Amino acid sequence: MAASAAIFCFVASAQQNLFPSQDLKSAVVNEDGSVTFNFLAPKAHRVQIVGDFMEGEKGTNVGMASSGIVEMTEGEGGLWTYTSKPLESELYSYTFLVDGIATIDPNHPYVFRDFATLTNLFVIPGGMGDLYSVQDVPHGSVTAIWYHSDGIGKNRRMNVYTPYGYETSGKRKYPVLYLLHGMGGDEDEWKNFGRACVILDNLIAQGKAEPMILVMPNGHSGMDAAPGESDWGYYKPYHVTNAPAAFESNFPEIVKFIDKTYRTRADKNHRAIAGLSMGGFHSAYISANYPDLFGYVGLFSAAVGAMPTTGSPFYEDFDAKLAKQFSKTPKLYWIGCGNVDFLYNNNKVMREKFDAAGYPYVYMETDGGHVWKNWRIYLADFAPRLFK
Amino acid sequence: MAASAAIFCFVASAQQNLFPSQDLKSAVVNEDGSVTFNFLAPKAHRVQIVGDFMEGEKGTNVGMASSGIVEMTEGEGGLWTYTSKPLESELYSYTFLVDGIATIDPNHPYVFRDFATLTNLFVIPGGMGDLYSVQDVPHGSVTAIWYHSDGIGKNRRMNVYTPYGYETSGKRKYPVLYLLHGMGGDEDEWKNFGRACVILDNLIAQGKAEPMILVMPNGHSGMDAAPGESDWGYYKPYHVTNAPAAFESNFPEIVKFIDKTYRTRADKNHRAIAGLSMGGFHSAYISANYPDLFGYVGLFSAAVGAMPTTGSPFYEDFDAKLAKQFSKTPKLYWIGCGNVDFLYNNNKVMREKFDAAGYPYVYMETDGGHVWKNWRIYLADFAPRLFK
Repeated sequence: MAASAAIFCFVASAQQNLFPSQDLKSAVVNEDGSVTFNFLAPKAHRVQIVGDFMEGEKGTNVGMASSGIVEMTEGEGGLWTYTSKPLESELYSYTFLVDGIATIDPNHPYVFRDFATLTNLFVIPGGMGDLYSVQDVPHGSVTAIWYHSDGIGKNRRMNVYTPYGYETSGKRKYPVLYLLHGMGGDEDEWKNFGRACVILDNLIAQGKAEPMILVMPNGHSGMDAAPGESDWGYYKPYHVTNAPAAFESNFPEIVKFIDKTYRTRADKNHRAIAGLSMGGFHSAYISANYPDLFGYVGLFSAAVGAMPTTGSPFYEDFDAKLAKQFSKTPKLYWIGCGNVDFLYNNNKVMREKFDAAGYPYVYMETDGGHVWKNWRIYLADFAPRLFK
Repeated sequence: MAASAAIFCFVASAQQNLFPSQDLKSAVVNEDGSVTFNFLAPKAHRVQIVGDFMEGEKGTNVGMASSGIVEMTEGEGGLWTYTSKPLESELYSYTFLVDGIATIDPNHPYVFRDFATLTNLFVIPGGMGDLYSVQDVPHGSVTAIWYHSDGIGKNRRMNVYTPYGYETSGKRKYPVLYLLHGMGGDEDEWKNFGRACVILDNLIAQGKAEPMILVMPNGHSGMDAAPGESDWGYYKPYHVTNAPAAFESNFPEIVKFIDKTYRTRADKNHRAIAGLSMGGFHSAYISANYPDLFGYVGLFSAAVGAMPTTGSPFYEDFDAKLAKQFSKTPKLYWIGCGNVDFLYNNNKVMREKFDAAGYPYVYMETDGGHVWKNWRIYLADFAPRLFK
């Protein structure tokens, strides 16, 4: 035991050499659902927290930016603290500002990348937060796998979730949900901030969703893979130039790859497509252009009427394609949007079009803007409606 | 295009609201192999960089701690800069210290977690750095998968790399390398800091290594999964209490799970085990206790003679078990250690024992201490020797 203790002390001291005295816990979730933050900064003049759980300007902003800023209080030895009021159960994000410099919490090494920004996170349990947390239930497998796109001319990366038991269930075949990210995202984002694999694990374990394969491709035809995962190396992410409709029009390649590589139920009524923002736009156009491919469609704060639709016949005659799609009676067309989302009106126009044409759809309107909180809620509502 | 541009500006402006004026590039790799860091901190009195690429105390420290610290220079508008001298091709780590507070580079959103610490990283291309970088070559798949351990009594997570073509190669069977982490690590660490999947992609593409399956389990029997990936939730990682030999003695369960779940060549001469530090200790004891399981063994800076060996018969009679292991002529026994590693002498004692007993082994001694740089080098030497 002595040797083990020696190594332990050694590691601990190495950490302490680098980050002296940072032997703190932070983002401590208290029993009443409040959260206490601790940050050691003896030389700082001002330490603040930016968090999406506090009062502040809300609404049309993206991700962390729909956040409030509060002052932390300096205590003994330069220890700055702040305790929130009790929060509803959710997954929340935060970042410290030390004299104006955004700083990751050195005592809470969990971050998600959203576009070019890393933010810390924590979960308040007891409600929706439980759905977004890994529970002691059977877990599916999550695979980063590459496919070759002849249409785009690249090897491209995607993430695939297979439900618990897939590997040992012999010849059993599974339905597939294709889940698409937004403009600032990539194939990793639903897995990370979106908690999609965790949500499916939990919904399946509760008997609320059918065991299904979840496919999360990269929706930027200009990219091979998420930043840092391709031969572009490590760089500061920026928005990608995509050839018009190159991702969307070549989507059948992805379906073909999945049907060849996994044991799928390879028919329309066992295939769903959904996406957020740009991915909602993609889902609308892909399902309308290939009306025999998807029996279930989900638009989450979809960027309909907010993306370029020139340069490809894929975007033409959308209304006629929709009419054909609905003449084939899809099992489910699902639309969700936040009541202060900057795309609220775009979705209203879309719904009015559907209403006028008599196309049936399920609609969910939630509080808030164009944020991950809403997209997780939409997935939690959408997934249980599939393949039943 | 107007709508798209509007969304683009919107996202960019949301980012800028949160992190004003951080429209910089940092960790810019220059043509001569030097690196320029940029950090905007108008109110800071002192900004430093801690990096493992600079002069500083070296040797017995872990990870980032074998690092030098340099001062950055403040320029116009509070922009602090530093340019290194030209560096040899490698993967390097760095962190800013702003008035003593460790701060992730807000302009370079790539971090790896090592124990409880996040550090930024960059790669200098042209040599070993190329081996650690995703290249435009065929890529294997990387799966996070859970197995049930009857012996430990838990569902436990591991990462499995299958080489390019595995999914479409019909009945072809593959050899397996089991790769174990150190005391501060978990099943994710070889995948992240260790770059093991990238190294194998590149070695296989170059024809230097056989296509093989790579299995990275969690070596702490007290853990289900890497921090944040289990129902322990998000917490500050600390060292785990492991029941004596619970991971090591139950290792055949892992082999059985892999042989059942993947298309493996399920015999000794198509199975290798290797690990760093604690994982090297594990590899030595597992391979000695199960002499018919592994034809190839690799000890990378192994913590031999530095871990507790009481409380289980698994640790008893090691010399006799070694004798039996070598009587069955393993294909390869590989030992590597840094010349200033704090475990150097432990490995020397081990080698002297092997020399005295006439056990053949391959030995690699490198500069430096107990650091990832060495473990990546060892994997790059070890993997091409396997299964030939």
